Amino acid sequence: MLEYLYPIRTYLIVAGTIEKPNAMTADWVIPLSFEPSLVGISIEHTRYTNKLIKEQKNFVVAVPTLELLRDVWIAGTTSGAKTNKAEKMSVTFVRSEHVDAPSIKECQANIECRVVNEVEVGDHTLFVGEIVNVTCGDAFISGKPDLNYSYILHSSFGKGFTVNRQEEFKP
Amino acid sequence: MLEYLYPIRTYLIVAGTIEKPNAMTADWVIPLSFEPSLVGISIEHTRYTNKLIKEQKNFVVAVPTLELLRDVWIAGTTSGAKTNKAEKMSVTFVRSEHVDAPSIKECQANIECRVVNEVEVGDHTLFVGEIVNVTCGDAFISGKPDLNYSYILHSSFGKGFTVNRQEEFKP
Repeated sequence: MLEYLYPIRTYLIVAGTIEKPNAMTADWVIPLSFEPSLVGISIEHTRYTNKLIKEQKNFVVAVPTLELLRDVWIAGTTSGAKTNKAEKMSVTFVRSEHVDAPSIKECQANIECRVVNEVEVGDHTLFVGEIVNVTCGDAFISGKPDLNYSYILHSSFGKGFTVNRQEEFKP
Repeated sequence: MLEYLYPIRTYLIVAGTIEKPNAMTADWVIPLSFEPSLVGISIEHTRYTNKLIKEQKNFVVAVPTLELLRDVWIAGTTSGAKTNKAEKMSVTFVRSEHVDAPSIKECQANIECRVVNEVEVGDHTLFVGEIVNVTCGDAFISGKPDLNYSYILHSSFGKGFTVNRQEEFKP
């Protein structure tokens, strides 16, 4: 019944280290609190990323651009437990400033989070992350978030991805 | 720093009763689990909706259409504690089938949820709701979710709303 909430915007969750990075496509991502700045990500128990984050207690939410759609697809359809996804993807993993989980150079932004709570919710774990740092990738050279960025990637509930072209709207 | 996640899709959270409905615009909405079907909504402590849901332990996530943008604006900029938002809005509140919180006739879908967990996260409460029923509004006459629905409402982090026109994409 969750499909009625879709399409939902898609992000990349990066875990692992700069030596062995692992990125997973995720649309179950939510802001949770302003003060402190908290983000929640809900990751299925069976996922390799779930295991990694439970061990390392940090992750990065990387905001992909339209150009990264192929990588988003790879990160969303292969398992890091079986294959080295980083080798298949075209992105450049770079060291984050405050957490072990790496960032992605070509993304709009890399939101570095430290896990402050883990809540078991059905077949998933909700990781509550406090944002400790944000860096902007090549796509956000201004260093500021671009709320009018034209193309947003959305997931269609496992039925592929769609691109949403943003239009200004005046009520 | 949460603005780097934006724009994010916008929904209406309905609480109260059919006699006294209250709708709030919310973009902090996330699927949490497949089995059982769980949805999370993060609502600021100061909000009237937070108080209502803590009391009644149920809510409806209503999925708005482009035509409801004006109502989304009203529900997002006025407080139900001070004014009767339902009177200002043009939507039709109707009885839900399984929860006290009403549904909205003109929405794409109304996702009826019973609260199964409440997690305090910073200045917000994350209400974990189990989906107990879904009804389709006038906009989804087929009764099936329309993953290719052309227009999606997004919030620009308190700086208004944008409309995202969906385009098919083949990688």
